[in-house]
Amino acid sequence: MDTKRRHVIIIGGGFAGITAVKELKHSEAEVTIIDKANHHLFQPLLYQVATGALSPGDIAAPIRSILGESRVKVVLGEVKNIDPKRKNLQLINGRELSFDQLVLAPGAQYNYFGNEEWQEHAPGLKTISDALKVRERILQSLEEAEQIPDPKQRQIHLTYVIIGGGPTGVEMAGAIAEIARRSMRNGFKNVREEEIRIYLVEAAPEILNGFPAPLGERGKDMLEELGVKVLRGTPVVKIEKETVHLKVGSIKSSNIIWAAGIKASSLLDSLQVEQDRLGRVFVDGDLSIPGYPDIYVLGDAAHFKDKNGKPLPALASVARQQGIFLGKVLAGKKGSRGLRPHFSYVDKGTMATIGTAKAVANIRGLKFSGFTAWILWSTIHILLLIGFRNRMNVFVEWVWNYLTRKRGVQLITDRSGCRHCSSSEDLERKKKSV
Amino acid sequence: MDTKRRHVIIIGGGFAGITAVKELKHSEAEVTIIDKANHHLFQPLLYQVATGALSPGDIAAPIRSILGESRVKVVLGEVKNIDPKRKNLQLINGRELSFDQLVLAPGAQYNYFGNEEWQEHAPGLKTISDALKVRERILQSLEEAEQIPDPKQRQIHLTYVIIGGGPTGVEMAGAIAEIARRSMRNGFKNVREEEIRIYLVEAAPEILNGFPAPLGERGKDMLEELGVKVLRGTPVVKIEKETVHLKVGSIKSSNIIWAAGIKASSLLDSLQVEQDRLGRVFVDGDLSIPGYPDIYVLGDAAHFKDKNGKPLPALASVARQQGIFLGKVLAGKKGSRGLRPHFSYVDKGTMATIGTAKAVANIRGLKFSGFTAWILWSTIHILLLIGFRNRMNVFVEWVWNYLTRKRGVQLITDRSGCRHCSSSEDLERKKKSV
Repeated sequence: MDTKRRHVIIIGGGFAGITAVKELKHSEAEVTIIDKANHHLFQPLLYQVATGALSPGDIAAPIRSILGESRVKVVLGEVKNIDPKRKNLQLINGRELSFDQLVLAPGAQYNYFGNEEWQEHAPGLKTISDALKVRERILQSLEEAEQIPDPKQRQIHLTYVIIGGGPTGVEMAGAIAEIARRSMRNGFKNVREEEIRIYLVEAAPEILNGFPAPLGERGKDMLEELGVKVLRGTPVVKIEKETVHLKVGSIKSSNIIWAAGIKASSLLDSLQVEQDRLGRVFVDGDLSIPGYPDIYVLGDAAHFKDKNGKPLPALASVARQQGIFLGKVLAGKKGSRGLRPHFSYVDKGTMATIGTAKAVANIRGLKFSGFTAWILWSTIHILLLIGFRNRMNVFVEWVWNYLTRKRGVQLITDRSGCRHCSSSEDLERKKKSV
Repeated sequence: MDTKRRHVIIIGGGFAGITAVKELKHSEAEVTIIDKANHHLFQPLLYQVATGALSPGDIAAPIRSILGESRVKVVLGEVKNIDPKRKNLQLINGRELSFDQLVLAPGAQYNYFGNEEWQEHAPGLKTISDALKVRERILQSLEEAEQIPDPKQRQIHLTYVIIGGGPTGVEMAGAIAEIARRSMRNGFKNVREEEIRIYLVEAAPEILNGFPAPLGERGKDMLEELGVKVLRGTPVVKIEKETVHLKVGSIKSSNIIWAAGIKASSLLDSLQVEQDRLGRVFVDGDLSIPGYPDIYVLGDAAHFKDKNGKPLPALASVARQQGIFLGKVLAGKKGSRGLRPHFSYVDKGTMATIGTAKAVANIRGLKFSGFTAWILWSTIHILLLIGFRNRMNVFVEWVWNYLTRKRGVQLITDRSGCRHCSSSEDLERKKKSV
């Protein structure tokens, strides 16, 4: 392996994959990165695209430009199958690639816990395309409500249900409350502020489960100040078109968003190795798969036990640290032949923003909430954004949004979901089915 | 009409419609604006979205936020039919609206001169959705070429054909040349600069027909400096999938873009009044339709004769001036009951940009080209952009692009057009059909 140039393949250009490849790009190895998308996406800010605060280009950067003039090969494609024994993989377009070392960082997808049919009625938020769909749906629903004279009919379009009280759900709920109550009301003549209802539905007794207890409570208070109804200890029983069924009662809404849980990418199933109930692959201390010392799994796809024996959470910071660690190991900058290096996670804190000037943060045991937490949140997210260009743009947008309380990007670009463009017969049919 | 509040309906939120409504928004009339999209689009910069220099949000602003707190009603919907005698109109969703005065500013659509089947293979550029499609196609074609070992197969993806040598075609050709040659080559390992071929095909003996003669020649020289092959006096005979047939020979390309001509919106056909061969409605000096003194047509949809008896060109500046004129007339700020006001166009000049620091401009008879024309072009376009937010963002993007020669927004967000995501059987089938 040392005489000819070894080939390292990295699957996935998320936080784990992109940091690993950056460490490796000047090594002696031949490096290939494969991703389904042509861009790295700053997922923690995806909800800001969904709520019209930022443009897709602000939070995504093409993988090719991130890697610039390095020798790394970028392949736009989807991996269909991995053969860990023969050390090769197959793309969906039929192309085959073989590797000496493989880094799997395919990330996660939404988990509907066996109710995959809910996805159609309650989409999640993982890609730019998802975020644009949610944005169109929110804007479209306000436009629909504006044209419906019957208040009861209108209510369906003015009700928003976010399922899942983790950081994504909390951030979405806060952002929608701000759009709906602050920015949009000026433009609409028939919609009144009091008609807008936003629900955050969480099965557990607290929201923001990963945070220390008082922050969950503070988060709930801040959301309620914004007018969000927070339903805790409320599992969702069933989701149908425009209806969320709870244990007691149901909510009618044309805007149902799923943020209740994730599972690892289904690509991992082709490996035929041990996985946990969320599909994550169990990895050793050096992030390799037991029995396959040259195949590594990182980020949301990996089940890595921390000191207490619990798996590390699906956070960008875990993925980044694992990417840096493994990139250095593979580049030969860390560890020696005799001793296998061991990854350990440094928890620098977690944070979630709830609205303009409202956030919660837990930094190395110190708990912040309100304006201080929000300034912390904004600064750290700006600094983490890849590429100077995005940083500058996002900063301009945020300052502008903060000063004007307006959301910048409220465009409906896709017309396929527009009901006013369908024929009158179609509309009749839809009305009946409601 | 003076005793009850008259109802003015404006169809179309383009340059003509939006300027008219702005003049009218504080008048005593009840005003409604209807548009298929929820945003006003700064169409002259649409090609910059198509070539990845700007984001959709930079050149579009929601109509509701442009009109802010005024009493104007905004209806998102498509007009199906207009009855000029009964003074009412019908939306595609079945809703009916009646008016006292009607302003028709529905704009134009691409004209394939009876060969509508060409549209599928050579899309035009009218909406944000069109621009995003062209952007995806350009980026996707480079990604495809990167993965194809056979140079002849690869050439199809590295060839760009822009049909039509007007300002839009010239601007597209220049922008693609800059993407292809400057920005993209760093990121791709297999594609060589010399492989990229860009054709601008024009049937007339000169490009930039609307400009004084020397500027057309200067434009051609500047395009050729950027590596664009300018084919003048070359009519297109037929377009098929990935092939443009010329009078002599043909060009194979997976990137064919249509910019060869427009016709007025087909909505006008429902009026049953006299139209020219491009579907434009003949209007009187006050922009009303002969025989219908309360129905007006503006912008690209109107055939208004200038002093020389020729129709005014389809330019943003014509549309804007007509919108302001008619808005003032309808608001009662212009003209008296006895005398019908007469519109006259003030030609402030025309300009087209060819690339970074390259443009041509004709300002009140003064001809500019090169860097001076480009600075003029940039300044005027920034100033004309609606809304401070967009101005600032576009300025930041342009300065950044100028300094780095990078294009900012190179994202493939829609995966439906991706061949690498199709199954290997599909790809086989596609290969055979090429």
